[in-house]
Amino acid sequence: MTRDIDTQLQQYKIQRKNRGCLLIRCPDQPGIIASISRFLFQYNANIIESSQYSTNHESGNFFIRIEFDCPSLPDQKEEIKTRFLGIAEKFSMEWKMTFPSDVKRMSIFVSKELHCIRELLFEWQSGDLMTDIVLVISNHEDARELVESFDIPFVHIPASRENRQDVETHQMKLLEAYAVELIVLARYMQILTPAFVEANPNRIINIHHSFLPAFVGARPYDRAYQRGVKLIGATSHYVTNDLDEGPIIEQDTMRVDHRDNIDGMKKIGRSIERSVLARSVKWHLEDRIIVDGNKTIVF
Amino acid sequence: MTRDIDTQLQQYKIQRKNRGCLLIRCPDQPGIIASISRFLFQYNANIIESSQYSTNHESGNFFIRIEFDCPSLPDQKEEIKTRFLGIAEKFSMEWKMTFPSDVKRMSIFVSKELHCIRELLFEWQSGDLMTDIVLVISNHEDARELVESFDIPFVHIPASRENRQDVETHQMKLLEAYAVELIVLARYMQILTPAFVEANPNRIINIHHSFLPAFVGARPYDRAYQRGVKLIGATSHYVTNDLDEGPIIEQDTMRVDHRDNIDGMKKIGRSIERSVLARSVKWHLEDRIIVDGNKTIVF
Amino acid sequence: MTRDIDTQLQQYKIQRKNRGCLLIRCPDQPGIIASISRFLFQYNANIIESSQYSTNHESGNFFIRIEFDCPSLPDQKEEIKTRFLGIAEKFSMEWKMTFPSDVKRMSIFVSKELHCIRELLFEWQSGDLMTDIVLVISNHEDARELVESFDIPFVHIPASRENRQDVETHQMKLLEAYAVELIVLARYMQILTPAFVEANPNRIINIHHSFLPAFVGARPYDRAYQRGVKLIGATSHYVTNDLDEGPIIEQDTMRVDHRDNIDGMKKIGRSIERSVLARSVKWHLEDRIIVDGNKTIVF
Amino acid sequence: MTRDIDTQLQQYKIQRKNRGCLLIRCPDQPGIIASISRFLFQYNANIIESSQYSTNHESGNFFIRIEFDCPSLPDQKEEIKTRFLGIAEKFSMEWKMTFPSDVKRMSIFVSKELHCIRELLFEWQSGDLMTDIVLVISNHEDARELVESFDIPFVHIPASRENRQDVETHQMKLLEAYAVELIVLARYMQILTPAFVEANPNRIINIHHSFLPAFVGARPYDRAYQRGVKLIGATSHYVTNDLDEGPIIEQDTMRVDHRDNIDGMKKIGRSIERSVLARSVKWHLEDRIIVDGNKTIVF
Repeated sequence: MTRDIDTQLQQYKIQRKNRGCLLIRCPDQPGIIASISRFLFQYNANIIESSQYSTNHESGNFFIRIEFDCPSLPDQKEEIKTRFLGIAEKFSMEWKMTFPSDVKRMSIFVSKELHCIRELLFEWQSGDLMTDIVLVISNHEDARELVESFDIPFVHIPASRENRQDVETHQMKLLEAYAVELIVLARYMQILTPAFVEANPNRIINIHHSFLPAFVGARPYDRAYQRGVKLIGATSHYVTNDLDEGPIIEQDTMRVDHRDNIDGMKKIGRSIERSVLARSVKWHLEDRIIVDGNKTIVF
Repeated sequence: MTRDIDTQLQQYKIQRKNRGCLLIRCPDQPGIIASISRFLFQYNANIIESSQYSTNHESGNFFIRIEFDCPSLPDQKEEIKTRFLGIAEKFSMEWKMTFPSDVKRMSIFVSKELHCIRELLFEWQSGDLMTDIVLVISNHEDARELVESFDIPFVHIPASRENRQDVETHQMKLLEAYAVELIVLARYMQILTPAFVEANPNRIINIHHSFLPAFVGARPYDRAYQRGVKLIGATSHYVTNDLDEGPIIEQDTMRVDHRDNIDGMKKIGRSIERSVLARSVKWHLEDRIIVDGNKTIVF
Repeated sequence: MTRDIDTQLQQYKIQRKNRGCLLIRCPDQPGIIASISRFLFQYNANIIESSQYSTNHESGNFFIRIEFDCPSLPDQKEEIKTRFLGIAEKFSMEWKMTFPSDVKRMSIFVSKELHCIRELLFEWQSGDLMTDIVLVISNHEDARELVESFDIPFVHIPASRENRQDVETHQMKLLEAYAVELIVLARYMQILTPAFVEANPNRIINIHHSFLPAFVGARPYDRAYQRGVKLIGATSHYVTNDLDEGPIIEQDTMRVDHRDNIDGMKKIGRSIERSVLARSVKWHLEDRIIVDGNKTIVF
Repeated sequence: MTRDIDTQLQQYKIQRKNRGCLLIRCPDQPGIIASISRFLFQYNANIIESSQYSTNHESGNFFIRIEFDCPSLPDQKEEIKTRFLGIAEKFSMEWKMTFPSDVKRMSIFVSKELHCIRELLFEWQSGDLMTDIVLVISNHEDARELVESFDIPFVHIPASRENRQDVETHQMKLLEAYAVELIVLARYMQILTPAFVEANPNRIINIHHSFLPAFVGARPYDRAYQRGVKLIGATSHYVTNDLDEGPIIEQDTMRVDHRDNIDGMKKIGRSIERSVLARSVKWHLEDRIIVDGNKTIVF
């Protein structure tokens, strides 16, 4: 199966070899777009898609995502980035410039429930997630067969309350060794330490099996059933050290009725979790998300 | 406008003159449906629609809604109800038998925001809510012009924390005088006293402007905006003395994005509130809802 | 009621007095955004929201919508427009610059079914449609009471196959007299002549009561019912001389089931028609729509 | 992986060993439910879930689905069926009595696109589709690795216009040898002959990649893109000899926008196809579907 994926990734990289992407957040003022677009024009770059948004009535912030095509990009990546520093400083920008052909290296953390990792692997295999899945880490063995059938390294690190520090030290070494840029918690049922989270800001995506902020915490389906809700949902978010409080990336809901008991809700919920998580990961990989405090802007 | 509604209601009553509806909740056991259906057959009643559901794995409850057509119904309503008592006792049923041609008498309580009452009035006028709207009560004058244009009595009862008791005494007298069977809180921004609520069990429907149990309490859109959710929702429920905790009848959600500020969310929310409330009222009027503890079964 | 609306419109105009909006379509090439944004910067304009899209792999077209705030706008509207001509010519743009404070003048055409016009009037009254509704034309009297309760002129022009030409002559005179900029067919059951349509390019919005292109033509709910579909829908589109084939602006669907007969489908359909039409009109009024051949781009 | 599935199926069969399901369609008249429920009561059967519906205003048909629990079922299956014949005759019923513990034997037909078969296999593996998948037939080799990883026999039968007769003869022999009861066309891109279809009435489920009846026929996404629709959909239906005209089981739609080109639509469409097909197959396996002419009633 892996051969297909490699071929798709190669094609994608070749097609995108001149593509760049700018993500910017800064205080709003006139002239920002004029400066950026003149800069890009100097490199003969063509803007393919741009989305911009200003919260002028609140904090006065400016957000933009620009995807551009630049014929000389392969030879000038570093120069373009360096020269952009001037504009970035002038407007006090938080920014990054990424290149779609540098596909992101991703690791999946998983426990015993496999529906989310399966969805990611199959979206990946279908060419719908352009990423290198370089490593899967689990505190159980359940996912091994599936993961290894994709020729992806699978590392089993048993976890418990007592050994959390050791587990994370091991995980961090692996993440570094594999140069991982995005960690996806695909129903990974362990709480990460503050140190781990802080080491990976806006780089850990979690799927929570409820429509947050309803049913924050454990056993959301049980509580949804007890409350008698008519819709259940799922939420993907970046992980911060406020449990279940990180910036929400995507949410969705589906209808349930009185015939759906807790198991029925879990089944329906699995399909929401799958699609919500897959969409979030896709947007992150395409550099469509800007984090603004505890919110996300998805362009 | 009222003449159209009267004509529609008259036609509806004539078409439904042989129609009855049974709503039952009882402990589950074999033979219940056999008994009910034999009973109805004795009256030559034809079952038009029936939905049944048993929670056999939990509390072992049995729920059924049967709508039937009985040629001799107009002359035998009381006899049929009386004779059903035997079956009801045998199976320890909580039950009611209603007759669609006895359209329910409804009162709407409203404050300053009119979108929900407007929706109800127009669904009513379009023939989509078969009810007599006999009275509108408000703590403000804003709805008067709209309500009176439908020839519906409008009573303004100013409300404050201090006079709550007097207000409710006045309201209760009016509800009794108008023989009101259903109270709809269409964004009525006053909290009802326990006595008022207990006097109207499962007869007060409220619309809450959030996807409960998220954002229980006041100012849900403000808090939804602060939390950065990607969907907002509304919830209709029967009012109990646990604030925002009554049995949920219906919920729905709609997508918002970063461009929607609090005002934008409120606008989107209004359209959800309108449709969620209208559906709930419709189901209640059609006797499709059975309350089971803190949940509803909507057949 | 009208006084509220006038107050809201006045506030809106004052708040937006410095606001401008550019809608552009042209062949794609590098430098377009740089030119536009430098131009705006010269007027010290701040870009509030911009969305851009290029179909570079197909026709190579470039589309952009820019909303900007310019302190000197009230005194320089004409100068800005005139001076933009140079850029427009250089890049072969089809373009328009509009000013939100010049709210559009709108006319509604309606026949006997009132749910769509009601929705528009109430969205308008709630401050959700910033427009002057200056005229309602109908081939029936049904909407008169409703329309006149909003102090909007209502003109009854009986229509038949024989007098279509006279009817339209009358209509066109009225549209001119009232300086109408947008015509909304809110379930207007007459076919317009090619001359009328050509005189109003991309200025007539119709609501079709099916999920086009399914059930093109008459009686879509009857045919949907016969076909046994599980969702029904509605479609709003600009009117062209290809019946039901104009550029689609918005669509939506809702679930139906076997219990919904044709009348039930019509009731459900009405609520889809209402919201789909209202959203389309809102987007048109906010200048969010660019027509591209037989498609729309909604920014 | 197969061992898990076998365990789940065994548990399911044991839990459902006393379960029966009646699906009935007949002309409407009083007394039907009384007769059925008395019959079941004689066997001490408890009705778990029943749904009934009458089209009394049209064809006067009566439809019911009853799921029941009968302690003596395992020893009396044949007797119960035989004795039900009396009631069935009296009311001119088309009927079937099925037993959930006799899980249905299913075959999947597939071509080169694997997303639908993958979804079915993973829903199956997760315990969400209670069936024996006994055989996969394909005109290509693409699905072999996936299918064989589940220990399911995979048979490659190359197909072309010329050899259609031979192909189907081969297929029919296999279906008989494997005692297949349900055929799912999971994006199988071959047209079946009338003889094949007639031999499998209401036993072949197809997924069509459009919101039928829009875009009947080939290349629906291309045509949806050309038409500029704002939602795309998928439709599952029983296969009849009217191409794309069989009774619709389920449909769903998702939103697309101007940024989605044909490939983007196909990607979005894949996720709709997957869920729509999986839901249909689930409902068929649970005997929730009654075919009524060219429509389905899904209880």
